[in-house]
Amino acid sequence: MKGVLVAAATSLVLALLGTPWFIKWLVKKQYGQFIRDDGPTSHRTKRGTPTMGGTVIVGATLAAYFLSHLVLGTWPSVSGLLVLFLMTGLALVGFLDDFIKISRQRSLGLRTKQKLLGQGLVGVTFAVLALQFENAGYRTPASTAISFVRDTQFDLAFAGPAIGLVLFVLWANFIITAMSNGANLTDGLDGLATGASTMIFGAYLLIGIWTSNQNCQTNPGLKCYEVRDSLDLAIVAAAGMGACFGFLWWNASPAKIFMGDTGSLGLGGAIAGLAITTRTEFLSVILAGLFVLETLSVLIQVSVFKTTRKRFFRMAPLHHHFEMLGWEQITVVIRFWIIAGLFAALGLGIFYAEWVVGST
Amino acid sequence: MKGVLVAAATSLVLALLGTPWFIKWLVKKQYGQFIRDDGPTSHRTKRGTPTMGGTVIVGATLAAYFLSHLVLGTWPSVSGLLVLFLMTGLALVGFLDDFIKISRQRSLGLRTKQKLLGQGLVGVTFAVLALQFENAGYRTPASTAISFVRDTQFDLAFAGPAIGLVLFVLWANFIITAMSNGANLTDGLDGLATGASTMIFGAYLLIGIWTSNQNCQTNPGLKCYEVRDSLDLAIVAAAGMGACFGFLWWNASPAKIFMGDTGSLGLGGAIAGLAITTRTEFLSVILAGLFVLETLSVLIQVSVFKTTRKRFFRMAPLHHHFEMLGWEQITVVIRFWIIAGLFAALGLGIFYAEWVVGST
Repeated sequence: MKGVLVAAATSLVLALLGTPWFIKWLVKKQYGQFIRDDGPTSHRTKRGTPTMGGTVIVGATLAAYFLSHLVLGTWPSVSGLLVLFLMTGLALVGFLDDFIKISRQRSLGLRTKQKLLGQGLVGVTFAVLALQFENAGYRTPASTAISFVRDTQFDLAFAGPAIGLVLFVLWANFIITAMSNGANLTDGLDGLATGASTMIFGAYLLIGIWTSNQNCQTNPGLKCYEVRDSLDLAIVAAAGMGACFGFLWWNASPAKIFMGDTGSLGLGGAIAGLAITTRTEFLSVILAGLFVLETLSVLIQVSVFKTTRKRFFRMAPLHHHFEMLGWEQITVVIRFWIIAGLFAALGLGIFYAEWVVGST
Repeated sequence: MKGVLVAAATSLVLALLGTPWFIKWLVKKQYGQFIRDDGPTSHRTKRGTPTMGGTVIVGATLAAYFLSHLVLGTWPSVSGLLVLFLMTGLALVGFLDDFIKISRQRSLGLRTKQKLLGQGLVGVTFAVLALQFENAGYRTPASTAISFVRDTQFDLAFAGPAIGLVLFVLWANFIITAMSNGANLTDGLDGLATGASTMIFGAYLLIGIWTSNQNCQTNPGLKCYEVRDSLDLAIVAAAGMGACFGFLWWNASPAKIFMGDTGSLGLGGAIAGLAITTRTEFLSVILAGLFVLETLSVLIQVSVFKTTRKRFFRMAPLHHHFEMLGWEQITVVIRFWIIAGLFAALGLGIFYAEWVVGST
C-alpha cells in the first residue's frame, strides 16, 4: 500500500510540474497541433496548441512506478512491466504519428498500414509474453480464459495450447485496439479523455488492492482471485491515475496542451493491459463505458450513413453530437465525466456484488 | 455494503431526475437568484438563474438514506439520524434565507441575528443529543474527546462532564459554523462547491466503511476505531455523494440552478456532522481543505485590508482572485476540483498511514 501512495503522489507531482515545462519546450520548438478538419468549425481556433502531452503522462507513470519500487526496495513484477511495456509501446506509435503530423504540418500522420503494423507488433509481443513467466503458483500474467470479474470457464485453449495461444493473441489485440481506439475517439474535447482515464485508473487501483487482499495464493477461498501480481498492478494504476490527474490541470478547458495520439494510445494500452492482467476483460467494457459509447456512436453513424445516407447523430463521436445540439463544450465535458464516473462506479459495484453474493 | 450501494444509486438518480423538475417548478414560480453585488461584474448576467437547489440535494439524501434502510430491513442509527438532522436543520435555515431574498427581491435575506439564532439552535441540539444514546458498548454518537483520525487524549471533559458538555457544544458548533461557512464561501462558481462536496462525501464513505471493518467492538485491536455507527455513517455519506454528483449534472457550468444557502449550509452541516461522529474532527480540515483555503482567503483579505488598506488578493474568496488574474471561470473550477481531490486523497492517505504505522 505504501507503494501505491508513493506511485500516485510521485506521478501526480511529476505531471503537474512537468507539463508546463514540456509546454514551454514545445512552444519554443514551434510544435503545435493541427486540428482534424472534420470537427466542428469552432475547433479551428485551436490550431497551434502544443500536443504530444501523452509523453508527460507516460513518462510520469513510468518514473513513479520505478521510484515506488526503489522506495519499497522491491523488484517490479512481470505483470506490471508488461502493462507498462504495452502503454509505452503504443504511446511510441502514437508519438511517431503525432510527430510526423507536426513536422510535415499536415493533419495526417503515419500511414494506416504503418500504424497498424506498429500497434500489432507491440500488442502481439505483449500477448505472447503475458502467457509466459509462470510463478511458483503456476500463474502467468494473463490467461487464455476469457474473464469477467475473474477468469470464466470459457477457455480459448479448449482445443489445445497452440490454438489457445493464437486465439488469445487475437483476443488480446482486439481488446487493446478497441480500448486505445476508444480513448482516441474520446480525446476530442479539452480534458475529456484525461478525466475519464483518471477515473478508470482509480477503479483499477481499487480492483488491484481488492484482488490482492482476496488472492487465492495468500487467502484461498471460494471466491478468491487468480491474479499474478495484483498489488503491483495497483501501483501501475495508481501511477497512471496520478499522472492523468496532474496532466488534467493543464489539459482542462481551455487546454494549454493536448495529449495527442501519444496519450490516447498509451492510455488505452495501459487500461487494456490492466483489464487483461487483472482478469477483468469484460468488466473493462463497463469501467471504460464512456470509451465504448464514443466508439459505438462512430460505428452507428458510419453504418447508418452507409445504408441510408442519413446522419444518425448530428456528428460523431458522441461528444460532438451534443455540441451541435447547443451544449457548451464545457457542459459536454463535465456531463461526460459524470457518465464516466457512473460507469466506473457501476463496474466496481458489479465487481463487488459478485464477490458478496454467495461468498458468505 | 448493500445499503451503501442502494443509497448512492438512489440519491444519484433522484438528484439527476429531480433537479430539472425542480428547475421547471421554480421558473414557473419565477424564483430566480439575485447575485451578490460584490462579485465580479461578469457574474451580473446570472441574475435570474433559479436557486435553492440544495432542496434537491437534501431531499435526495434523506430519501436515499431511508429507502436504503427500507431495502435492508434495518433501523436507522442514532448517529446517522443526527447527521441528517444537522444537514436538514441548517438547510432549512439556508432555505428561509434564500426564500426571503427571492420573495423580497433583494440580495440580503434573513437578518444576521436570526440566521445565527437558527444555526445555533440546530447546532446546539445536535451537539447535546450526540453525547446521549449510549449503546451496549457505552458508546455515544460523538465524544468530548478532540479527534484527529480517532479520539485523542485531549478530552474536553477534563474538568468533569458538565464543563465537558459545555465545551463540546461550543467546539461542535465551531466546527459546524466553520464548515458551513466554508461551503458557503466556496459556492461562488458553477459546480465548484458541488464537485468538492462530492469528493469529501466520497472520502467519508471510505472512512465509514474502513472504521466499520476495523471497529473496536467487532474487531478489537491496538488501532481499532471507536465509532458508534460507522457503516450507517457510510450510508449517509454515500447518499450525500450520490445527491451531489447527480445535482452536478445541472449545476455544472453553465449552471441551470444554484444550490443557494439551502445547499451550502446543508452540505457544510452534513460534512461537519460526519467529522464529529466519525471522530475525524481535525482530519476534516484536510479532507475539506478547499473550504478551509477559501475561508482563509477571506480572513486574510479582511484583516490585511483593515490594517494596511491594501488588498492582499485581487478579490476574495480565493476563486474570484484567480478569475481576476484572467483564468477562465471553468479553468478555476476544474483546477479547484483537482485541489479538492488532492486534499481528500491526502486526508485519506494520512488516515490510512496512521493505521498502517505500528499496527503490525
